[in-house]
Amino acid sequence: MNHSTPVVMSFVAWSGTGKTTLVESLVRLAHEQGLIVGALKHDAHKFEIDKPGKDSHRFYAAGAHSTMIVAGDKLALVQRHDEAPEVDSLIAIHFQNCDLVLVEGWKMSSLPRIEVHRPNLKRPLLCREERYDPFLVAVASDAHIDVDVPVLDLNDPHAVLDFILKRKI
Amino acid sequence: MNHSTPVVMSFVAWSGTGKTTLVESLVRLAHEQGLIVGALKHDAHKFEIDKPGKDSHRFYAAGAHSTMIVAGDKLALVQRHDEAPEVDSLIAIHFQNCDLVLVEGWKMSSLPRIEVHRPNLKRPLLCREERYDPFLVAVASDAHIDVDVPVLDLNDPHAVLDFILKRKI
Repeated sequence: MNHSTPVVMSFVAWSGTGKTTLVESLVRLAHEQGLIVGALKHDAHKFEIDKPGKDSHRFYAAGAHSTMIVAGDKLALVQRHDEAPEVDSLIAIHFQNCDLVLVEGWKMSSLPRIEVHRPNLKRPLLCREERYDPFLVAVASDAHIDVDVPVLDLNDPHAVLDFILKRKI
Repeated sequence: MNHSTPVVMSFVAWSGTGKTTLVESLVRLAHEQGLIVGALKHDAHKFEIDKPGKDSHRFYAAGAHSTMIVAGDKLALVQRHDEAPEVDSLIAIHFQNCDLVLVEGWKMSSLPRIEVHRPNLKRPLLCREERYDPFLVAVASDAHIDVDVPVLDLNDPHAVLDFILKRKI
């Protein structure tokens, strides 16, 4: 697609709504369409991604702020911070070679946002009922709802991807 | 230190010479001195850094080119490539907030280079005997050798770090 900057869309939902599964489907579809896709997730929990004894883990344990290991097929970077950076700066630094970047979390960012919603879970809309979110551009729902933005079919990731890519053209 | 760009030093050695242990010591010392340290290693082997079932692994398996997970204390990025990028571009993109970047591998790059050497292993100097490497700036050795660049004490990482930091001032 050769965008100068990637198309970015963020996703919010109550836990258990299927947000990660939707993002995973969108990654797969976009990749199959030939797009270079980035996926970026904020996780409130600490994680351990590297394995003790590996060289990269030794450097990290010794106090390295940033540790990278590079093989012929991929690289992995682990970088410390005192608090999670703004998502915009992360995209600007690390995702500029992507056509499309899909984001989970950072629900107070100023990225365009799709809320994933299942009315039968009886939870209020995060971006309309909990607060009015001016960055909400659509709701992906598995049933009809009344809302002032387009409602996309949560079970039709093709339609969701189409909406995201057409917004930017 | 507030460098506009980080001080960068690369290390080469025959396998088994103790290069990674030296780099690990330098990371620890520099970190203890308050420097923001990056460590960057080229590994000819493929590696698996993420765990199946984690969301970031799901995105990667679905075809994402770049996958990032961000917690309150650190981030992890996994990015695919068709061949290992030039080390200069990796530093420019991912390590600009570091004071010091220590590099293992990329022995044909144009980064300044220290060869780690132990004469009793009876291996030739990679950067003088195997080929003439114009980017060699020192040899870190555990015994005296004759060479046209400074010889640092491999068992004195303070002296090696001092050499690296003073070069740039």
